[in-house]
Amino acid sequence: MIGFEVSARSGLARAGRLSTPRGAVETPAFQAVATQGSVKALSAEDVAESGARILIMNTYHLWLRPGPERVAEQGGLHAFTRWPHAITTDSGGFQAFSLAALRRADEDGFEFSSHLDGARLKLTPEEAMRIQGLLGSDIAMQLDVCPPGGAPREELVRAIERTTRWAERCLAARRGEQAVFGIVQGGTDVELRLEHAETLARLPFQGLALGGFSVGEPIARMYEALAVVAPRLPAERPRYLMGVGTPADIVRAIGWGIDLFDCVMPTRNARNGQVFVRSGRLVIKNARYKDDPLPLDPDCGCPACRGGYSRSYLRHLYLAREILCHRLLTAHNLWFYQELVRAARAAVLRGEFAIWSAATLARLEPDAATTTAGSGAGS
Amino acid sequence: MIGFEVSARSGLARAGRLSTPRGAVETPAFQAVATQGSVKALSAEDVAESGARILIMNTYHLWLRPGPERVAEQGGLHAFTRWPHAITTDSGGFQAFSLAALRRADEDGFEFSSHLDGARLKLTPEEAMRIQGLLGSDIAMQLDVCPPGGAPREELVRAIERTTRWAERCLAARRGEQAVFGIVQGGTDVELRLEHAETLARLPFQGLALGGFSVGEPIARMYEALAVVAPRLPAERPRYLMGVGTPADIVRAIGWGIDLFDCVMPTRNARNGQVFVRSGRLVIKNARYKDDPLPLDPDCGCPACRGGYSRSYLRHLYLAREILCHRLLTAHNLWFYQELVRAARAAVLRGEFAIWSAATLARLEPDAATTTAGSGAGS
Repeated sequence: MIGFEVSARSGLARAGRLSTPRGAVETPAFQAVATQGSVKALSAEDVAESGARILIMNTYHLWLRPGPERVAEQGGLHAFTRWPHAITTDSGGFQAFSLAALRRADEDGFEFSSHLDGARLKLTPEEAMRIQGLLGSDIAMQLDVCPPGGAPREELVRAIERTTRWAERCLAARRGEQAVFGIVQGGTDVELRLEHAETLARLPFQGLALGGFSVGEPIARMYEALAVVAPRLPAERPRYLMGVGTPADIVRAIGWGIDLFDCVMPTRNARNGQVFVRSGRLVIKNARYKDDPLPLDPDCGCPACRGGYSRSYLRHLYLAREILCHRLLTAHNLWFYQELVRAARAAVLRGEFAIWSAATLARLEPDAATTTAGSGAGS
Repeated sequence: MIGFEVSARSGLARAGRLSTPRGAVETPAFQAVATQGSVKALSAEDVAESGARILIMNTYHLWLRPGPERVAEQGGLHAFTRWPHAITTDSGGFQAFSLAALRRADEDGFEFSSHLDGARLKLTPEEAMRIQGLLGSDIAMQLDVCPPGGAPREELVRAIERTTRWAERCLAARRGEQAVFGIVQGGTDVELRLEHAETLARLPFQGLALGGFSVGEPIARMYEALAVVAPRLPAERPRYLMGVGTPADIVRAIGWGIDLFDCVMPTRNARNGQVFVRSGRLVIKNARYKDDPLPLDPDCGCPACRGGYSRSYLRHLYLAREILCHRLLTAHNLWFYQELVRAARAAVLRGEFAIWSAATLARLEPDAATTTAGSGAGS
């Protein structure tokens, strides 16, 4: 089982400590995505070296291959993947929708065809908990219904109601000491979100997550909803914003009281040659880097920057499609995200989150910051 | 410039020391292939950790991209690729034949179209030396003419004669302190090989290589030729067998007096899921490994085996096409090759190469060894 305590607050932002059977995780924390049991292009050691102490793995993918029974026989995900720290598994519902050929979604669960071999499969709340129990993650996510961005209110209501019933079924089916988080839905409708959060807060979940953000809605709508909903999630439990987001999204969401994140952005963007740096982003294939002897970020301690790999060489590796490029850029981006949440935590502990947040957003989004600052100064 | 001394002999096998401006290389040595300036899937640190102290990089590929002028501006290949140890570059002729659309080969050189953008390029002995000089490798290879396996005698003779004239042009065009190796051709014709070796031995090359093996000829013909030719290469200079081979090939060739090797086999086979182990080879995708908790080789010290990654997990990564699989299997195979040449060297130093070689070949090729042993025992 897990424990959670908030050590400090600065405005609505929190610095906390999540205790898990695999050690403590300082929050705010970013969970890198190890979809199939590996953070793409990195070893477990590389990931730990970035400072990460919790990963999220994918129930749908691991269910299909190699199968939860096989993972259980090998001692569970920690032993199998050589990641000794905390692991969250999502419930698989999102992928059953997005990757598989969904055939039927009813009160019982999802019926769909495997994207690997077309096999007919059924994911129910009970099956989601059985699979996650076999995988042996520290935190399991409930099976939920996640409507797309812009779904009409009636669809949001139906999704919420079913998600609540599935929440109860997941809790009834939980196994052993595994922690389970509930997932709040409701799109960008603040009223629905608050109501659903209140409902799920009454259930014995160890944490609550916000699902159904970053699914196609305008970012301003997400911000508006988050700013109201996040601070009103139960204060004594960890608050997890699923699938979000850019560095600026994360800074803002921490400011609204979120503790946990996951997103494919640092790892996926790295494989597309997009690198996060203090001043924004750098696209390594750009011709301007062809003779650039500097590392990605001269002040960064990641293996790529510390190792002295120049932008010129990294650009060459990218154009030559060398695997090493994926690894070095992924390591860098993951360090960037880890440094970001570490810096946010330090700012909360100093009681200066608002100052840090404004400075960081101004650096990450120089154009937006100038406009805002300009308006504020009346110029 | 380089130096070379033979420290010990055991039969025809030699243990030596190649001194380069980037440090000493103990021989026999295996050069991993870093075609485009990166051993595929590994960092420079990973490669060095395997014990490797010399790599071979590809003049043709680096000429086309990123270009030798750019590499020179970045301080040469060592600085550019972060590989601080010795580097050999091949001359590019082999790839001009095999990868590019060759348009014309005459006394002056090769005219061909780039495989990247179709650009018309000309590779002459002088250009090959200019490019390698800019790349800044420690050992440059002469431009040579390499006929395919089974080429008729007249073609072999013409290739040898032109290779000799190009040898002289390369030596005349050499730059600064870069060492240059000559390349002996002649297919599997022992008489031609010996004659060409004698001709090139009279030129001031720092080492001699055997090119044109493992180009489609039957392996028995290669062995027959190598067994005669290798021991008669100049004893005081390093002897380099290009593009060979399997672990058994390498053990045999060391026994005939070869000091240096290069081959894509450990790295390329790794990416295809083929793993070298003491008893032969292991194909990681095979169903027999699906529940196998053992590392690839429990006695191996490579990052994959030492890290405790199981065959079951590696098979999963292979089937899931995870990049980490390439890296772990490549690291393992490279360690295997490095351990092999280290063990061979130790056997030479002990004066027991023949015993070690017989035992090693029996392990690597159990079927072949049984047959031979059976014949020898009259059974």
